[in-house]
Amino acid sequence: MRMVDIIDKKRNGGELTADEIQTFVDGVVSGEIPDYQISAFLMATYFNDMTAAERSALTMAMMQSGDHLDLSSIDGITADKHSTGGVGDKTSIPLAPIVGALGISVPMISGRGLGHTGGTLDKLEAIPGYTVEISEDAFLQQVRDVKCAIVGATGNIAPADKKIYALRDVTDTVDSIPLIASSIMSKKIASGTDALVIDVKTGSGAFMKTLDDSRELAHALVEIGKGVGMDCMAVISDMNQPLGNAIGNALEIQESIDILKGQGPQDITDLVLTLGAHMVVMAKKANDLATARAMCERTIADGSALKTFGDMIAAQGGDRSVIDHPEIMPQAKYQIDLPAKTSGVVSTVKADEMGIASMLLGGGRQKADDQLDYAVGIMMHKKVGDAVTAGEPLLTIYSNRENVDDIQDLLYDNIQISDSADPITLIHETIR
Amino acid sequence: MRMVDIIDKKRNGGELTADEIQTFVDGVVSGEIPDYQISAFLMATYFNDMTAAERSALTMAMMQSGDHLDLSSIDGITADKHSTGGVGDKTSIPLAPIVGALGISVPMISGRGLGHTGGTLDKLEAIPGYTVEISEDAFLQQVRDVKCAIVGATGNIAPADKKIYALRDVTDTVDSIPLIASSIMSKKIASGTDALVIDVKTGSGAFMKTLDDSRELAHALVEIGKGVGMDCMAVISDMNQPLGNAIGNALEIQESIDILKGQGPQDITDLVLTLGAHMVVMAKKANDLATARAMCERTIADGSALKTFGDMIAAQGGDRSVIDHPEIMPQAKYQIDLPAKTSGVVSTVKADEMGIASMLLGGGRQKADDQLDYAVGIMMHKKVGDAVTAGEPLLTIYSNRENVDDIQDLLYDNIQISDSADPITLIHETIR
Repeated sequence: MRMVDIIDKKRNGGELTADEIQTFVDGVVSGEIPDYQISAFLMATYFNDMTAAERSALTMAMMQSGDHLDLSSIDGITADKHSTGGVGDKTSIPLAPIVGALGISVPMISGRGLGHTGGTLDKLEAIPGYTVEISEDAFLQQVRDVKCAIVGATGNIAPADKKIYALRDVTDTVDSIPLIASSIMSKKIASGTDALVIDVKTGSGAFMKTLDDSRELAHALVEIGKGVGMDCMAVISDMNQPLGNAIGNALEIQESIDILKGQGPQDITDLVLTLGAHMVVMAKKANDLATARAMCERTIADGSALKTFGDMIAAQGGDRSVIDHPEIMPQAKYQIDLPAKTSGVVSTVKADEMGIASMLLGGGRQKADDQLDYAVGIMMHKKVGDAVTAGEPLLTIYSNRENVDDIQDLLYDNIQISDSADPITLIHETIR
Repeated sequence: MRMVDIIDKKRNGGELTADEIQTFVDGVVSGEIPDYQISAFLMATYFNDMTAAERSALTMAMMQSGDHLDLSSIDGITADKHSTGGVGDKTSIPLAPIVGALGISVPMISGRGLGHTGGTLDKLEAIPGYTVEISEDAFLQQVRDVKCAIVGATGNIAPADKKIYALRDVTDTVDSIPLIASSIMSKKIASGTDALVIDVKTGSGAFMKTLDDSRELAHALVEIGKGVGMDCMAVISDMNQPLGNAIGNALEIQESIDILKGQGPQDITDLVLTLGAHMVVMAKKANDLATARAMCERTIADGSALKTFGDMIAAQGGDRSVIDHPEIMPQAKYQIDLPAKTSGVVSTVKADEMGIASMLLGGGRQKADDQLDYAVGIMMHKKVGDAVTAGEPLLTIYSNRENVDDIQDLLYDNIQISDSADPITLIHETIR
């Protein structure tokens, strides 16, 4: 089987067999298929899409190209959450201990941030001592003991995906549903979880800008997951404005703690409880979402979620005193308010540009090897629909440089104040 | 300007500016644009095509990426012919001396064969001593003296095309009209000719299998040529069955001599005269095609074309005695007839498979660096529409190996004898 024939079949709209897809993935990993043929194949796939069978075959072949976790030593149903990425999205950090506090095992393998989106691992590393790189054995032991762990991938997870992903970035084949879906699911299937809730973001700060595209991706993800016997569903949630108020690593840990104390912003708390309720139902600890949500709320009210968070931090080498003393995390030298120029109602806060502002302050990465400044970021005081008076601070910039004129200009350009605002729907759809 | 943005614009259906195309071509030549981005761009172009302006810009940028010939030392209008390639297509070999004998300068830069199609240069090299590699000065001098020359490209012609062509072959982006057209025309424009007749082949043995595709390619080629001020037109001619009777290098030289002696097969003679007449009109040596064709016929009748052919051979170091002694060319050890299995009318002779049979005998190349056996090939005795009696030879195999069972099987599989045959139209259309 020659790669040029596989490209030809895809280019001409044919459906590839599992064998043909396996040949492609094997050749990618072995290096026998040159990059120029991989990229031609990716572009042909961008144009001609893949059937459900092709997507599953590609996902499984990429998954099997590397290591996968064996969670059989963990009793009961394991549940995980994946997000397609957004700004201010610290959902995983309070979610894992809330669900863990209910006795459900949450072995969460998370990622780092790039560009305007933050990464859960980066945020956790703002906690002194917290390490995301632990051995597989220690990871499994922690999930058995504490019920939750948030770590980076260990071992060689889906190396085919790594290679393909790097090429997609430079060949303009990133925004292809079959390629996105197989990339995400190959890694999640390798993580071995029984149940998975996928938070597909939609809006200006999301990868998928329209509800239609987000829905298509959500369906693709769920279909692949179910195809391999994973209990899998998706929630489509808003990413037009940042989630919660905090953007930036230490700031988002602080906000995560607030959520676990029942003092978090309404939108992110609502999302955490919604996703948590789905995980509880999937783990068969409740029969309906209302009961499950109430159970999650109780872990906040009774302090058990916060205690589990502390246990998780400690188990991963971090200083759990951060819960009551967030000031042990790196602090920014300057806090600079951004006053509203006019009075009215906040009608737009562009999520992606807020993320870029935080990145430019040093809180995010422009390139994969950039060093992070955990202290910096943005704390929103006004969000879409909030009334504001001229001069009142819209947000506070946390910075380690004194002059933030460029950041202020960027922020002003991307926050609109009008007479009225269209309400933002947080949860658009649930897809099973 | 980043290459990924140029890919993105093409992928999303935008029209590239001449600057963007120049950036692409410059990056291809300098090596700054990696192969994987070139191939992603080529695949996006396959799907989204190019406008006339883009095709012209790509052609000119590729042409200007290398050397181009200065024909200003040649008086009068220079005329050339290009064919998109076929089986048994030795047209250029009698055509150049026929037109040259009328005092028209024919500076012909030709190519080699690959796969089922033969190459004019390969055929000429069957003549003892004939060299296709001569200096630019010698080439120009020969055109001034003899009026015609058929040589290989000297210098560094369209290096961008060379690089892109090699990638197209392995990334399944060969059959793209804008890429084919710009590849052909970049080289023809670099060759400096004033007038160009393009013979676009159509049918099973051609690159373009359908008349629609051939017509589209012909229009694309003519449009690019005219766009740069070249006097350019195209003829769409049949390539369902081989052209003439001879397939194989020495055999085709022999047939070319027959044509120049007025003893050639009817179809190839007709095509040579048709193309020749167009060249004569474009060179302004006649006002209409009928007059021009009669002039071409006269060069055959009066022996001037044959003499010019001899002069061309001699000028390029070849032994002109080949004209009366074709046996000085390599001769095959075995001549094996292929008898008809049934009586009837020949209804199909698949051109591409006849070409492959000749290639497998050693007369063509499977890979670019294969050595050729000039002696071998096939001489057709029956063509589409000819009546045949069982046992009568359909063709003769010229071979240097005794056992040609495989070749015979292939030939039988691709020659059909029926009760009747659909007539084959040789010249389908003329496109200006």
